[in-house]
Amino acid sequence: MTASSDAGQTIEICDVGPRDGLQSEDRLWSVGERVELINRLIGAGLRRIEAVSFVNPKRVPQMADAEAVIEGIDRSRNVRIAGLALNARGAERAIAAEVDEVRFVVVASETFNQKNQGASISRTLDGFDAVAEPVRAAGIRLSGVIGASFGCPFEGAVAPDKVAEIAGRLAERGAEEIGLADTIGSAVPTQLTELYPMIADAVGEETKIGFHLHNTRNTGFANAAIAASLGADFLDASVGGLGGCPFAPAATGNIATEDLCFMLRNMGYETGIDLDALIEVARWTEGFFDEPLPGQVMKAGLFPEVANRAAG
Amino acid sequence: MTASSDAGQTIEICDVGPRDGLQSEDRLWSVGERVELINRLIGAGLRRIEAVSFVNPKRVPQMADAEAVIEGIDRSRNVRIAGLALNARGAERAIAAEVDEVRFVVVASETFNQKNQGASISRTLDGFDAVAEPVRAAGIRLSGVIGASFGCPFEGAVAPDKVAEIAGRLAERGAEEIGLADTIGSAVPTQLTELYPMIADAVGEETKIGFHLHNTRNTGFANAAIAASLGADFLDASVGGLGGCPFAPAATGNIATEDLCFMLRNMGYETGIDLDALIEVARWTEGFFDEPLPGQVMKAGLFPEVANRAAG
Repeated sequence: MTASSDAGQTIEICDVGPRDGLQSEDRLWSVGERVELINRLIGAGLRRIEAVSFVNPKRVPQMADAEAVIEGIDRSRNVRIAGLALNARGAERAIAAEVDEVRFVVVASETFNQKNQGASISRTLDGFDAVAEPVRAAGIRLSGVIGASFGCPFEGAVAPDKVAEIAGRLAERGAEEIGLADTIGSAVPTQLTELYPMIADAVGEETKIGFHLHNTRNTGFANAAIAASLGADFLDASVGGLGGCPFAPAATGNIATEDLCFMLRNMGYETGIDLDALIEVARWTEGFFDEPLPGQVMKAGLFPEVANRAAG
Repeated sequence: MTASSDAGQTIEICDVGPRDGLQSEDRLWSVGERVELINRLIGAGLRRIEAVSFVNPKRVPQMADAEAVIEGIDRSRNVRIAGLALNARGAERAIAAEVDEVRFVVVASETFNQKNQGASISRTLDGFDAVAEPVRAAGIRLSGVIGASFGCPFEGAVAPDKVAEIAGRLAERGAEEIGLADTIGSAVPTQLTELYPMIADAVGEETKIGFHLHNTRNTGFANAAIAASLGADFLDASVGGLGGCPFAPAATGNIATEDLCFMLRNMGYETGIDLDALIEVARWTEGFFDEPLPGQVMKAGLFPEVANRAAG
């Protein structure tokens, strides 16, 4: 990891706050509030947003009315709006709603996948076809997210070759992007260094690779820095660190988008995001909660851009 | 930064909670409480502790009675007890109290050093001799800490060659270790990558180099990971993330020792610390406060050691 390899590179940031973030919160956000959050993110320069989930609203009431949310989004700018779809019905809704990207999830440990998706990994992967075929036929971007790519709360450490095998199967069956998720926030940088080339080998050059990192044990930003240095195409994050607070106050899930963009900017990466504007969105989002959100830069303030001499 | 370069390496951890941590807290800890904190850290395997400060108790009441604290410490194990001394009087007290290490501080930006030490950098460096000579003559280890090595709240980014120049002068005049402090928590990994070899050039091979990192903008652990990979000899941290909460709840200063040791352990580093025991010390420390401390691992729980295949 060197300064010279980082300066001037571009990395894509996907804000998952409106979907992954809000889904973990107790309070139901109205359609209007969800639309406003998304449009504020677009205003701050986000060009990829995990906006909705096409799942049964009885199972996930936070994500009801995905179609109404999408209708309210300002799509005049070149933004990629992503929605989660886990089966044929979800894919059908996503296509009808005209999302730009469909995200499918499989978990890399059998026990966790069984609890999360109600099926074995093998059956979940078979089910991927029912999503992939119509989505690709409709010309919509298709992403495969691999949950618990680094550690599982039930099985412990997850074998990287198992993750690579799943990534290879998703890519073979149509996934154009692979997201490696540290669902429980147990990963450390060396695990990314080990896993990344194995995934790259498994999926081939055309497939984009990104990471979805959690800060549960304070390793999320260390992992993000190494992910960027490894050449990851995209990183997920949520404004303010919204969502996924599985424990008492100050325990955190998602890495905060504005903190990630601060770090990447001062490391010399281009993200296309207006940091001042994004911090305003984080503060606005925090206004909905009684407790502070995990994002730090909105509290400490920005620090000036540093010279990345390697760029010159 | 590769997995293979990390596995099996040793890195020394210095817990600065009893000094740097408690000094920033409003509540005055009693001598007995301070001694108990230090002895609990020793029990958890810490072998280097920034325990006290020999400064005027009228200026820093939290650090009064340094001699009494040191008398209570269990020194039967091979622990290095460090104390801060900023002038001849402090050095005299430190020598009389029989500390194992004296730490002197100079700040790398003129404005900040003037506010912090009440003198220009040049005058502060001249004052170093009055500490260095008696300390070295007494056979006590001498460390020079360079505050604001990456950014200054008044002057912005700090030029690395300025930091290297100060490091060179400290080493030339007797400092055996140089600590590079990110006092305001503005650093990002590429800054460490740039600065580290410049410091190594300036101080020569015999001088040890370490970092004192803050997590104010969520970059502290990313910086610690890169510091370890660069070959840093030691890292400062404070149990629970104690101290230095300059903002509202959840804003943080020092990186938490137990979170740092969790990350380093799973990256394949040897720290000699008993993580379960250290987490207990963090919880005990947190019991003194109304708000949770910033450490995350004590809330989320440890995650099993991962295989570092590169070690095999």
